[in-house]
Amino acid sequence: MLSMTISPLAPKSYPKLQPIKGVRLAMASCGVRYAGRTDLLVVELAEGTKVAGVFTRSLTASASVLACKEALKGAVARGLVVNSGNSNAFTGKAGEASVSRIRDAAGRLFGCGVESIFTASTGVIGEKLPDEKITNALPNLLFSESTWDEAARAIMTTDTYPKLATQTAIIEGVTVTINGIAKGSGMIAPDMATMLAFVFTDADIPANILQEILTETNEVTFNNITVDGDTSTSDTLLVFATGKAGNKAAASTDYSDFKKALHSALHDLALQVVKDGEGAEKLVTITVAGAESKKAAKNIAMSIANSPLVKTAIAASDANWGRIVMAVGKAGERADRDRLCISIGGVSVAKNGEADPNYNEVQITEHMQGRDITIDVNVGVGSEFATVYTCDLTHRYIDINGSYRS
Amino acid sequence: MLSMTISPLAPKSYPKLQPIKGVRLAMASCGVRYAGRTDLLVVELAEGTKVAGVFTRSLTASASVLACKEALKGAVARGLVVNSGNSNAFTGKAGEASVSRIRDAAGRLFGCGVESIFTASTGVIGEKLPDEKITNALPNLLFSESTWDEAARAIMTTDTYPKLATQTAIIEGVTVTINGIAKGSGMIAPDMATMLAFVFTDADIPANILQEILTETNEVTFNNITVDGDTSTSDTLLVFATGKAGNKAAASTDYSDFKKALHSALHDLALQVVKDGEGAEKLVTITVAGAESKKAAKNIAMSIANSPLVKTAIAASDANWGRIVMAVGKAGERADRDRLCISIGGVSVAKNGEADPNYNEVQITEHMQGRDITIDVNVGVGSEFATVYTCDLTHRYIDINGSYRS
Repeated sequence: MLSMTISPLAPKSYPKLQPIKGVRLAMASCGVRYAGRTDLLVVELAEGTKVAGVFTRSLTASASVLACKEALKGAVARGLVVNSGNSNAFTGKAGEASVSRIRDAAGRLFGCGVESIFTASTGVIGEKLPDEKITNALPNLLFSESTWDEAARAIMTTDTYPKLATQTAIIEGVTVTINGIAKGSGMIAPDMATMLAFVFTDADIPANILQEILTETNEVTFNNITVDGDTSTSDTLLVFATGKAGNKAAASTDYSDFKKALHSALHDLALQVVKDGEGAEKLVTITVAGAESKKAAKNIAMSIANSPLVKTAIAASDANWGRIVMAVGKAGERADRDRLCISIGGVSVAKNGEADPNYNEVQITEHMQGRDITIDVNVGVGSEFATVYTCDLTHRYIDINGSYRS
Repeated sequence: MLSMTISPLAPKSYPKLQPIKGVRLAMASCGVRYAGRTDLLVVELAEGTKVAGVFTRSLTASASVLACKEALKGAVARGLVVNSGNSNAFTGKAGEASVSRIRDAAGRLFGCGVESIFTASTGVIGEKLPDEKITNALPNLLFSESTWDEAARAIMTTDTYPKLATQTAIIEGVTVTINGIAKGSGMIAPDMATMLAFVFTDADIPANILQEILTETNEVTFNNITVDGDTSTSDTLLVFATGKAGNKAAASTDYSDFKKALHSALHDLALQVVKDGEGAEKLVTITVAGAESKKAAKNIAMSIANSPLVKTAIAASDANWGRIVMAVGKAGERADRDRLCISIGGVSVAKNGEADPNYNEVQITEHMQGRDITIDVNVGVGSEFATVYTCDLTHRYIDINGSYRS
């Protein structure tokens, strides 16, 4: 069953995504699992489209993830086929055969080799994918350039709202557009974070540079969010560049503005994913500073972000900073207990290893009852920092995950 | 507030612990935090008592833990002072001063040096310990040899029942007794597991051998349990040996039966802690076999045991083995996706990387609805195995942890 109440953290309005030259979208209702809604997204990409990707680090990765990784070696793409309802993960040889049949059928549809077809599946793990429902739908699709909202909806599972982002950038005087869609919403943790995200641009950019920019940008966007610390076997982030904007890629081309725009788009999508974490009532922004290294800062921040005790306290609007101390301690990274400082909502609650004598819980009651909680920690041993994002742990998380398959 | 409904996994009856020569117990109601209940346990130990201990690996360990570690270098004990209601953790120099004052007062009471006094505190983190309430109570205590049940109750926080275990062992023809008490119940995760456990024996055993046996036994008992993956800053397990049983320690002494009995006592206490995990409705026993190493087996088992998605599925009596696959994948240890086998309640649900064709969910419905869930996983790459224990993740976990401080 799909989840129904829209997250209180949902955006007030959705951006209107403009067409991207060389990208055409089609949706269908195949009945893979869900009735009465679209569950298939097919994207046609112009010839010559470059592609880059990052994937789950799960050692039990799904058949689609393995096929995408293989296809990425060619770095060109003509088609993307995504279904929701069934993740085709842990389905053994049968799962690999399903992916093959889908790629064959899409290759026929677009008149290209299977090595240019990318696939992704999301939903229940361990049940055979009824791929004939998908391949039967392919010949009857109606493609369009403007149905971004519908595309984002077709890939949803327990998401309560579609996730879209758009940015423009300038590459050597030419304006290029970046459109992205994503879906969450459980099993959101590094590495990497969202289960599925697809980004499209009309920029002309060599595949190796695109991959480099994506890897770096993913590390500080999707890899900085967590919902429950669990990792999907299907996590996939792909970026497709059709090269139709009119800029010309050259060795000397400056892609810094493109990189900045991609960062904004991915950050935007990543936060939308966290805000739609299963049962989320609050967005929690955790910054750890004063750490020995960036990695240490991130590990400590993630230890706080994934602590069920911290997350339940936040759900209850309880400024229980003692649990933050606990999470710092268990992270296994160096921290100076007697220099540790913690602020919540900008108010110092603990400094130099003990409760701030000037702190009065009333000062942050209003903050704790809000939707947007900030936690700042300084561990007092260095000068590196990291910011991660998570949500609180509520009764609805248990409701949703205790009934997902029923 | 203390938690009230007794865990459905509570033991049907409590063992009656016999006196241990050289151990006298006293309780008091000091009002550290709780009203109308005992919150102080003081134990007098005969002169010459040996002691061994293991502690939290938290890098923000409490003042008591640091003092115990220091005292352990002397390896002799005359007194133990434990309070509930306030953990005296993250209380800086003030916290260290509290521990000092308590040890001074207990040293005067027992006529010994502070280096023989061990302390532990459990409860809220980050608030100053009103140690004068404890030191004021010390001179008025009434000691007894038989009040083990009351001792176990005095150290409870959110525990719903007292935890006691007793065993006897034979050392070179002499029967010795082992009595243990413990308290949970959140932040139960390696390393180590229970927040507080104290074990007493009348055996005569050199401190270095006692420490060796304790370290090894702890690793396969308390360190194999987890409730929420969170780790307390106060975790303490101490074993005191008064040497009053009449056996004589010698270089050639065989302690294997003692070690076995200590294992039984610690295993018993550890399971009682898990069964009283906050909100626990089910005990979950997870065995991972076919792993590359014992460490890999345990890491995979803990990844399953700490997965919120696995734990919520179990709470909902849902045999969602796909989430078990996910947890195997994210553990980061080697596993062969295409040889992976999973059984639940002894029924094969997945083999060789896909759903078992003979498996019918109805077969394990009754098992899933029971109190005692077993999960067996074979990851198909080696011959090492490990078993860990956890509980499910229920609405009550959130209720308890969202209101602990209020």
